[in-house]
Amino acid sequence: MPRYALLVEYDGGPFSGWQRQTDHPSVQAVIERALARLEPRAHTIAAAGRTDAGVHGRGQVAHCDMDKDWTPFRLSEALNHHLRPDPVAIRDCVRVPDDWHARFSAIERRYLYRVLVRRAPCTLEAGQVWRVKTPLDIDAMRQGAASLVGAHDFTTFRSTMCQARSPVKTMDEIRIESLVSHAGPEVRFHLRARSFLHNQVRSIVGTLERVGAGAWAPDDVARALAARNRAACGPVCPPDGLYLMGVGYPEDPFV
Amino acid sequence: MPRYALLVEYDGGPFSGWQRQTDHPSVQAVIERALARLEPRAHTIAAAGRTDAGVHGRGQVAHCDMDKDWTPFRLSEALNHHLRPDPVAIRDCVRVPDDWHARFSAIERRYLYRVLVRRAPCTLEAGQVWRVKTPLDIDAMRQGAASLVGAHDFTTFRSTMCQARSPVKTMDEIRIESLVSHAGPEVRFHLRARSFLHNQVRSIVGTLERVGAGAWAPDDVARALAARNRAACGPVCPPDGLYLMGVGYPEDPFV
Repeated sequence: MPRYALLVEYDGGPFSGWQRQTDHPSVQAVIERALARLEPRAHTIAAAGRTDAGVHGRGQVAHCDMDKDWTPFRLSEALNHHLRPDPVAIRDCVRVPDDWHARFSAIERRYLYRVLVRRAPCTLEAGQVWRVKTPLDIDAMRQGAASLVGAHDFTTFRSTMCQARSPVKTMDEIRIESLVSHAGPEVRFHLRARSFLHNQVRSIVGTLERVGAGAWAPDDVARALAARNRAACGPVCPPDGLYLMGVGYPEDPFV
Repeated sequence: MPRYALLVEYDGGPFSGWQRQTDHPSVQAVIERALARLEPRAHTIAAAGRTDAGVHGRGQVAHCDMDKDWTPFRLSEALNHHLRPDPVAIRDCVRVPDDWHARFSAIERRYLYRVLVRRAPCTLEAGQVWRVKTPLDIDAMRQGAASLVGAHDFTTFRSTMCQARSPVKTMDEIRIESLVSHAGPEVRFHLRARSFLHNQVRSIVGTLERVGAGAWAPDDVARALAARNRAACGPVCPPDGLYLMGVGYPEDPFV
């Protein structure tokens, strides 16, 4: 069976997350249903990141196995046709070796978290940013973030529901960008690691926002990390601002 | 009665346009209804640009007259409270002189039109861009646009429903920007003039897109303009990509 890698974009708003669930809409189920329109049978696809409810995908990667030998262009066009009107789109599709796996072959995940700083409620960005009303101290957040880069026990920054065997992860980068978009002053958090724990990005950004607002000192982040205790974490921020931007592989299948 | 200028942002998607209509939702009616929650009576507000159905506002300007002497901050906060859950927000509010008029005092309107160039359907940008599948030749569009800058009879580029007395307008700028956003290659058209005719921006961008796609030669734009004939216009592009970005006044009331 020929295997295909899919580069997937979605608005996470209407979905209970990536992963298929019995009674709730999911991105996985929507794509599997579209595949069943092309080859009528049960399809099971695997993805690099199982994003939570409300979290968006810009560069999610999944793979599927087909019976027929589809040209990648025709497969993506046919899938996009059957994905309508759901806000899920196949941005690219390539043939990959049979042992290539969207999740297990991945060596890097890149996330973006968008915070919009303004008092007025969101209109065009509704569901796509976290709006906070207080200006954020970028330097203080950068200081706090520095203590999270590298290999650490991230028990403080993972959900109590997290099923990963180990809480030790290596954070390769937390870059904090300050800009002014059409909607107003915006802070963008760029996080990069081989893999992430459940709720790790939202736990980190929620904590750094407290530092930016002045409620926490930058050093409190290192103390919270050292505590290795979920109770030491700041508030987990909402899913709206979170995007899985891309997935890294030893060789990028999409170039 | 104290007069206030409102800086208004909205997602035009759910509305039949700015202007109040008997049987259809409008941005104007939504704001007037919120005003009536603050001071129970009929309110009539005026705006600088009467955007069409589906067209967005980033920097629309309107004014309202109140009975009470509101502090601008309290007025905008109260309005934003009552505007929920409609995707309309007051980004700023200032006291202005009694003879200041959002429409008649305005000396410049700035519009943005966003075109996303990709085959995959839109997800996160749905309703906020015009998606075209063919790459656009930026230089050719710039050549075509050059013939529209300055004072011209824009009969070709206005709706047959346009109620302006004269079809002569001065286009101060058409700037075409090429960039890559998270959604893919994007072309942004920035148009600036004292005032615009009905459907003028969408007629111009729809025509320039034909140039970018190679269906029209750049010189055809000058010929279409010289024809002074609506039938010579290219296709009018959809409202989704159009934003009223800002309005200019002899003195900016919001600084």
